[in-house]
Amino acid sequence: MTGFRQRLDAFLDRADVRRVIIGVIVFNAIILGLETADTVMDRFGTLITALDTACLIFFVVEIAAKLVARGGRFFREGWSLFDLVIVGISLVPAGQGLSALRALRILRVLRVISVAPSLRRVVEGFVTALPGMGSVFLLMAIIFYIGAVIATKLFGAAFPQWFGTLGRSGYTLFQIMTLESWSMGIVRPVMEVYVWAWAFFVPFIMVTTFAVVNLLVGLIVNSMQDAHHAEDTANTDAYRDDVLGRLDAIDKRLETMAHRDAGK
Amino acid sequence: MTGFRQRLDAFLDRADVRRVIIGVIVFNAIILGLETADTVMDRFGTLITALDTACLIFFVVEIAAKLVARGGRFFREGWSLFDLVIVGISLVPAGQGLSALRALRILRVLRVISVAPSLRRVVEGFVTALPGMGSVFLLMAIIFYIGAVIATKLFGAAFPQWFGTLGRSGYTLFQIMTLESWSMGIVRPVMEVYVWAWAFFVPFIMVTTFAVVNLLVGLIVNSMQDAHHAEDTANTDAYRDDVLGRLDAIDKRLETMAHRDAGK
Amino acid sequence: MTGFRQRLDAFLDRADVRRVIIGVIVFNAIILGLETADTVMDRFGTLITALDTACLIFFVVEIAAKLVARGGRFFREGWSLFDLVIVGISLVPAGQGLSALRALRILRVLRVISVAPSLRRVVEGFVTALPGMGSVFLLMAIIFYIGAVIATKLFGAAFPQWFGTLGRSGYTLFQIMTLESWSMGIVRPVMEVYVWAWAFFVPFIMVTTFAVVNLLVGLIVNSMQDAHHAEDTANTDAYRDDVLGRLDAIDKRLETMAHRDAGK
Amino acid sequence: MTGFRQRLDAFLDRADVRRVIIGVIVFNAIILGLETADTVMDRFGTLITALDTACLIFFVVEIAAKLVARGGRFFREGWSLFDLVIVGISLVPAGQGLSALRALRILRVLRVISVAPSLRRVVEGFVTALPGMGSVFLLMAIIFYIGAVIATKLFGAAFPQWFGTLGRSGYTLFQIMTLESWSMGIVRPVMEVYVWAWAFFVPFIMVTTFAVVNLLVGLIVNSMQDAHHAEDTANTDAYRDDVLGRLDAIDKRLETMAHRDAGK
Repeated sequence: MTGFRQRLDAFLDRADVRRVIIGVIVFNAIILGLETADTVMDRFGTLITALDTACLIFFVVEIAAKLVARGGRFFREGWSLFDLVIVGISLVPAGQGLSALRALRILRVLRVISVAPSLRRVVEGFVTALPGMGSVFLLMAIIFYIGAVIATKLFGAAFPQWFGTLGRSGYTLFQIMTLESWSMGIVRPVMEVYVWAWAFFVPFIMVTTFAVVNLLVGLIVNSMQDAHHAEDTANTDAYRDDVLGRLDAIDKRLETMAHRDAGK
Repeated sequence: MTGFRQRLDAFLDRADVRRVIIGVIVFNAIILGLETADTVMDRFGTLITALDTACLIFFVVEIAAKLVARGGRFFREGWSLFDLVIVGISLVPAGQGLSALRALRILRVLRVISVAPSLRRVVEGFVTALPGMGSVFLLMAIIFYIGAVIATKLFGAAFPQWFGTLGRSGYTLFQIMTLESWSMGIVRPVMEVYVWAWAFFVPFIMVTTFAVVNLLVGLIVNSMQDAHHAEDTANTDAYRDDVLGRLDAIDKRLETMAHRDAGK
Repeated sequence: MTGFRQRLDAFLDRADVRRVIIGVIVFNAIILGLETADTVMDRFGTLITALDTACLIFFVVEIAAKLVARGGRFFREGWSLFDLVIVGISLVPAGQGLSALRALRILRVLRVISVAPSLRRVVEGFVTALPGMGSVFLLMAIIFYIGAVIATKLFGAAFPQWFGTLGRSGYTLFQIMTLESWSMGIVRPVMEVYVWAWAFFVPFIMVTTFAVVNLLVGLIVNSMQDAHHAEDTANTDAYRDDVLGRLDAIDKRLETMAHRDAGK
Repeated sequence: MTGFRQRLDAFLDRADVRRVIIGVIVFNAIILGLETADTVMDRFGTLITALDTACLIFFVVEIAAKLVARGGRFFREGWSLFDLVIVGISLVPAGQGLSALRALRILRVLRVISVAPSLRRVVEGFVTALPGMGSVFLLMAIIFYIGAVIATKLFGAAFPQWFGTLGRSGYTLFQIMTLESWSMGIVRPVMEVYVWAWAFFVPFIMVTTFAVVNLLVGLIVNSMQDAHHAEDTANTDAYRDDVLGRLDAIDKRLETMAHRDAGK
């Protein structure tokens, strides 16, 4: 039994099997893309739905095979769980008004990331960069919360569509942080009612922009240090060991000479 | 007496006391968030106001305790003064038209920064980055002032809502610097009256954008150098001391040998 | 024959011949710029068309000469093929409705890049930076495809002008990624029909912006490493060779001394 | 005579004289700012004009004194010429319709840059960064010229207000490069007439944004290298000289020992 599981695992890891899986994912992506075209669906609707179901069955079988092959290990790997969730979404019965869930089936295309190593590395790079930015994100969340409460209290009564609730204020402040129509669209109209509104919004823009810039700087500095470190270590360490080794040799030779001199 | 103050100081610095303080701040933040929801206030208004007052009393007691524990030291610490000002704002009697002050009570949430060390470090990192950018900020202030005077003189008569006073020109130029609706919203309408207006605005955009980019570059270079320096120092210094130490040893050994040789 | 080809090649590479070619390109650029002015074309139309044709003949002769001089080598050089395609576009007969092709004749000005070494280096720098970003680009293409399919399915029926087809959704998502009117122009109107639309667009903005930032960071880190490496190598290697050379010499000298001592 | 000129030069360079000059510049800036306020001008117009004239006389005398003190050297210094041009602008008789020239008098405030060393250094830093970006700027100018010619030819007839002439196309393309209303304001309306317009504008945005990003990266890498180099040189060179010096000493000592040994 264990032998079968090991052989299954090895089979699933083979380069050509991976290539077949990527092929099915890409084929499924095209199928799901065609589904958006009404003219295509009118003529080939049943065929496309059938092919989509076939792809889904393929994925379910593949996940099941992986589950059998790896057993408990399956649940300790982030990427396996990622695949499981994505395929799971497609199995939830949609139709009773949950058309949004049907639209999410395209997320299956994300599986290509877990299968292709180069994409996997990029995403892992993104994810490992996140924890270092945790404090700044927390700080921005605090600033947004404070900003949303103040904006709701000050401008909520006069501009309910923008600042009526905490949620709306948060969305509007996010829009303002991205600098989209912040002045002509939001702040100038607000200033016609509250002349001093700029004293809230301009500092808000400055603080959030500065925080975003600091996120960016932190990201650059971290990446640079990692790269710098990796490169340096290999190269410099060899040289340093070389120098220290030779100095040791010289020292030892001198010691022998001194002993012999003394022994004469 | 001094013993009591020392014990009080130690008590306030204990990890679990800090955690209680953070808990009260977060609880107060939720209370102040609920205050923005009219439906909640209609039903639980008195309870929420009472809880908010309780939180405020807690903060006042905490600040007072810190003041007693640290004495004069309290006023020499930036973060203590920060806490004092923030809690002080909430004590100013609001109601007589100063509803803006009531909205500022949410600033109390900022106290979480002074209590949580990781957030504190981020903000301190921001603040220490500022002085190095002082000259560029001053330069941008000069450019803005010049730009506002020119814009007011040239376009103030025809577009009083945008360039009527120095203040309005400054706000409009800030909007233009953020690139928000600068062309469709401001410069194209202005160009319908003053055809050559682009000759003022396009260079203004280029100069201010370039200055902002230089701020960013300066920030990156500084952070990088700090990081680079900190990393290098530990690592390289040990190696350098090692090499120099061994060279000294070899030199000394040779000197002894030479002396003995000469003494023979 | 080969002698003639070699002499022709050398002639085409001469600095003054290059300068003449650049001169003709710049002259042609001015001619094509004048063609856009109706008042100029009304009076000097035939002259300008004639001068443009003369420039085109010059370029065709030059390319032909290069083709003769270099033979098969011509097709292995990227920049030669670049020149060939650009001049080729101008030779396609336009007029039968293909006025767009006539407009593309101005692309000839791009030839200045292949002739001027400093511009050539900049473009080569851009192009060599691209492969390193391949994975991130692929990832963004996947995100865009997924986003376009979801947006078409969810919002296509209600907003056909923005999300009616995959292509339109892709264009609108590109606009949203550049943050242009994303909220006031697109998402707020969509949210009036689908209240939860922000739950799709705000994460989309965050993910794509984060990916763009990572492209930028990758670019900076790569350029920095290249620059750092080039600078370091020259400087440090000389020093390292110097130190190792001297250590070798000391070691050898000590060995001779030891031998002599032993031989005494 | 020379003695007088030297003393005058030394006098103008004294720290307190500089401070007086900065004071007059700032005072003049306030005066020129007050000139924009109609209510102030109605009541104190003559006083303000008189004070402005007094400041101008002060500057003319200062420039004249510098000219006498430095003689020919004056014209070889960039900052002196900068001062001369700025003060010169104010002396051009305005009034006959040249009200724009009157507005430019505020440029005098820029003199504070040439007087305050910290601002001077920032601007010099900006200016020295420019030549390294020359090739990229030239490339962007070429791209803009090509883009403007194509846009004028393709869209000029249908959208004369945006693409009617080369100049208008250039301005509109600059707006598009800054991403301001590029889609909702310009490209979507154009696409209603020319469905394929996106195939021109989207690549244009990508190429120009990529070029701007490369400018930024180049700026960061250069600044970093300068900073890195400056820091490293001082620190590392001392160490390197130290190591090489000690190795030399050891080598020489060994040589003496070997000679003596040989001489025994």
